[in-house]
Amino acid sequence: MNAAPARWDAHRKSVERALREALDGSGADNRVVQAMQYSLTAGGKRVRPILLLLAHEAAGGRADGAAQAAAALEMIHTYSLIHDDLPCMDDDDLRRGRATCHVAFGEAAALLAGDALLTHAFALLAEAPGVDPAVRCRMIATLVGAIGYDGMIGGQMLDLDAEQKDGLSIAELQTIHERKTGAFLEAAPALGAMAAGATDEVVAGFREYGRKIGLAFQIADDLLDVTGTAEDAGKRVGKDAARGKATYPGLLGIDQSRARAQELVEDAIRALPCDTADGDLAVLARYIVERIH
Amino acid sequence: MNAAPARWDAHRKSVERALREALDGSGADNRVVQAMQYSLTAGGKRVRPILLLLAHEAAGGRADGAAQAAAALEMIHTYSLIHDDLPCMDDDDLRRGRATCHVAFGEAAALLAGDALLTHAFALLAEAPGVDPAVRCRMIATLVGAIGYDGMIGGQMLDLDAEQKDGLSIAELQTIHERKTGAFLEAAPALGAMAAGATDEVVAGFREYGRKIGLAFQIADDLLDVTGTAEDAGKRVGKDAARGKATYPGLLGIDQSRARAQELVEDAIRALPCDTADGDLAVLARYIVERIH
Repeated sequence: MNAAPARWDAHRKSVERALREALDGSGADNRVVQAMQYSLTAGGKRVRPILLLLAHEAAGGRADGAAQAAAALEMIHTYSLIHDDLPCMDDDDLRRGRATCHVAFGEAAALLAGDALLTHAFALLAEAPGVDPAVRCRMIATLVGAIGYDGMIGGQMLDLDAEQKDGLSIAELQTIHERKTGAFLEAAPALGAMAAGATDEVVAGFREYGRKIGLAFQIADDLLDVTGTAEDAGKRVGKDAARGKATYPGLLGIDQSRARAQELVEDAIRALPCDTADGDLAVLARYIVERIH
Repeated sequence: MNAAPARWDAHRKSVERALREALDGSGADNRVVQAMQYSLTAGGKRVRPILLLLAHEAAGGRADGAAQAAAALEMIHTYSLIHDDLPCMDDDDLRRGRATCHVAFGEAAALLAGDALLTHAFALLAEAPGVDPAVRCRMIATLVGAIGYDGMIGGQMLDLDAEQKDGLSIAELQTIHERKTGAFLEAAPALGAMAAGATDEVVAGFREYGRKIGLAFQIADDLLDVTGTAEDAGKRVGKDAARGKATYPGLLGIDQSRARAQELVEDAIRALPCDTADGDLAVLARYIVERIH
């Protein structure tokens, strides 16, 4: 995995500072807190929080609490990885090149660390400084729609159930991805625009951008599982095929999957209400497909 | 377990209506939603939501959204039971006289159902009608303090770690319970008072009431594990002793544990800022210890 452009470094640093501040202080002797820290500092790319911060900036936002809201998204992403890696789910022992949380801390601590990250994220949003309380409530409700039973969690269930099933269509696969990974990626820039006090129309544009790059991202991930090395992907590769899991390259072939991802990225950039074609969000969108070429 | 006094029935019904409304509609064909419904309708006593609603009423509240906030607490309680019952935690197969969620739906669906209940609870709070948005944010932050790594989840970790340890003191046991079960029970009436727009001082009184009955409740639970039948307790009994787990009756003896629970209940009633000694919250407090005599 190549390093992301240096211009996002400031945003990444502010997210990482907000994460440190959020867990600073009490509880450091508790195994749950250690497991939370372990997984939060495992070297994630911070895609979702950076999306939130770039959209917030593009929409003209100046809320102090944007970094805190961004940190909340990273906590939620991290919780979802910890729970997905558990033996009763994907049973992964390697993540971002390190032992997964339950391998390092035991299953009970990993389960609880995931629960605690999910829980704490909502306090960060509820208390985001400089964001109007009504907007904070709207952000929380929007996020829940994206990551709850109607979004990420429901998609994860569909995905597990689909493993038992032969012959998934491309439409079924797309539905699973739209919920499992797409809904959350779609929400990230929309939440940034909300925090900036953007109008519904502007928020909808960022949401559309997020929806398109979410799908592109999933196609890229599927491609990396086929064409990448464990080092590129930061996790075991070849697992999807070994499980007979439906993937874009499996259904469309490698070339057509690449073309589809490319097309989605261009659609995403066109949907942006504020950013220009050379702005940061456009660069980020193109960066998703660069890793697969 | 005896039926609770009939006067709470209206509150219980309004919580159950809010729970139905919250999960009405989309997603009913998803196994996660089925697992959520299964556990939410397993016949819980609804102690936490009733505490919220009674405190809301005692503090003079008239918010339409109180039942919705109460339903959020029941979702959180249910999530915590589902995750606690998982094989990597307490590994229980029976809960409230029925198969636990993972026995009925599989471990992956149970894990996700717990995650989804926790997630959805925050949307219910963020959108509680008739409650000021700043108060909704404050309620969310307060709840996170009670159920996150500093509260319930951290306490659960301490409790699991304590099983490996000989000779827990009564002070250590109390710390575990204050976090594992106490913090959430303490928050329930405080959140009701907040939703009613009560002052900080009044909220603190309800919190103190909740703190005392939380401890009394835990002692009662420990006692039921020793002296009760599976029917009384609604779950397997004798498990704590079989595991060598530290309990109040184990450390203080049965009689002294009963006396301590009784004393806490009277302290709780004295802490109430609005209710009188024969009000509903006093009746509820006394009801906790009645089951152990």
